[in-house]
Amino acid sequence: MMAWNAEGVGRSAVRRRVTRVDADHSVERPDTLAVEEPLEIRVNGEPISVTMRTPGDDIDLALGFLVTEGLAGPQDIRAASNCDDNVVDVELPHVPARRNFYTTSSCGLCGKDSIDAVRTTSPYDASQDTTAIDEAHLLALPDKLRAAQRGFDRTGGLHAAGLFVGGDLVCVREDVGRHNAVDKVIGWAVQHDKLPLAGTVLQVSGRASFELVQKAVMAGIPALAAVSAPTSLAVELATDAGLTLVGFLRGTSYNIYAGATRLRRSP
Amino acid sequence: MMAWNAEGVGRSAVRRRVTRVDADHSVERPDTLAVEEPLEIRVNGEPISVTMRTPGDDIDLALGFLVTEGLAGPQDIRAASNCDDNVVDVELPHVPARRNFYTTSSCGLCGKDSIDAVRTTSPYDASQDTTAIDEAHLLALPDKLRAAQRGFDRTGGLHAAGLFVGGDLVCVREDVGRHNAVDKVIGWAVQHDKLPLAGTVLQVSGRASFELVQKAVMAGIPALAAVSAPTSLAVELATDAGLTLVGFLRGTSYNIYAGATRLRRSP
Repeated sequence: MMAWNAEGVGRSAVRRRVTRVDADHSVERPDTLAVEEPLEIRVNGEPISVTMRTPGDDIDLALGFLVTEGLAGPQDIRAASNCDDNVVDVELPHVPARRNFYTTSSCGLCGKDSIDAVRTTSPYDASQDTTAIDEAHLLALPDKLRAAQRGFDRTGGLHAAGLFVGGDLVCVREDVGRHNAVDKVIGWAVQHDKLPLAGTVLQVSGRASFELVQKAVMAGIPALAAVSAPTSLAVELATDAGLTLVGFLRGTSYNIYAGATRLRRSP
Repeated sequence: MMAWNAEGVGRSAVRRRVTRVDADHSVERPDTLAVEEPLEIRVNGEPISVTMRTPGDDIDLALGFLVTEGLAGPQDIRAASNCDDNVVDVELPHVPARRNFYTTSSCGLCGKDSIDAVRTTSPYDASQDTTAIDEAHLLALPDKLRAAQRGFDRTGGLHAAGLFVGGDLVCVREDVGRHNAVDKVIGWAVQHDKLPLAGTVLQVSGRASFELVQKAVMAGIPALAAVSAPTSLAVELATDAGLTLVGFLRGTSYNIYAGATRLRRSP
């Protein structure tokens, strides 16, 4: 398998010979695959996490991961560098302890407890963000994100996350993991000193899980829109945190699961 | 949010009021959401992992997780029980150490090294499995899986994995996480003493990542078919392990990424 560096996207896609079968014929032909490789995230030289990701924007990914997992505040980051192709080292005042899920559970993880057990504490309060979201802008987000997904066009195997301000795309990232795509966008914002991301809408290509809502909350993003379904815990957390959560955003229709007051219907 | 126990699927879906907007009108109506809750997996009473999953078949999930992560062999499992709604305890001869990604990397995780760093060692050798896969059976798998996806019909937010023998569905599981759906199927097989799963095909509803191929290899499954794209590392691992990997299986067409010799074209 040979690295494919076309279009300046680095190591995000590779070419590979596959057998394509279609109805009554079969051909050997090259196919483009989304690259998946482990990235080791280190803090002060000490390994903290390994994530399977698509190479590219790895420093953004590491910074976004540390901030959205509550392991570092944006102001804690002193430096970040690629120690190797698949290793990023971030310099912080101290090495954070990995969040321990177990300390908060006695025996069970039920109802409200289960959210408390897995949620992190955000320094930002989305419920205080009075941003109004114009419906015409909202309806246009999936097409704008799709148009910016160069990797998906070639591989069909990459998720995307796009950060929008007033209907304009300000940052888009693609990855085999949708949580990574979101971390890369937020890490980009960390590098550009843009947290909290007040007044923005984060559009994602797939479904909305608890994890994605949590990452949005940790970055101070007031609204998350997905083209597909949210999960129960995503809706609960969005409601608790005052985040606007939109799902099944397709064509001229969508569902509002939380934070409907931010939406401004088009006349 | 009220638990919804219709159709005997336990706590896998909930009803919630949402605002549905469609072109020029907006209505409040109930919507069905896929449930996502944390499951704590314990071994001999000690917490090993927390995974975000859809409740149901939790013991299967725990057993599948332990076996496919290489933390336990099927023969090691002495007992498993629900300690609480969101906690499963599995009795093993000893508490396994969590697999440490870091010990195998010196500085970098590159090329072949990166696979070695994250892959587990399977007790089974898929390359020795001489199962032939009839193309007519293969082409029918997505529709058969889709027909068995009761949760998806209601929520639009659940992945599915189905285990097939000679075109017949023998086990199907749904979950908000596709890795969980696969773990549940494999855990079902562990409980029924069916490992290695020689002669089977595992059909999944989405893409094929490294993680899913690895889980298949750990269970002795010789073929994995996905309706969407595989990643580069999924193809590399399938090739290394002698697994047949089919992607973009839709209608009468598909791509074979590895292990083409098992396929028998229909006349």
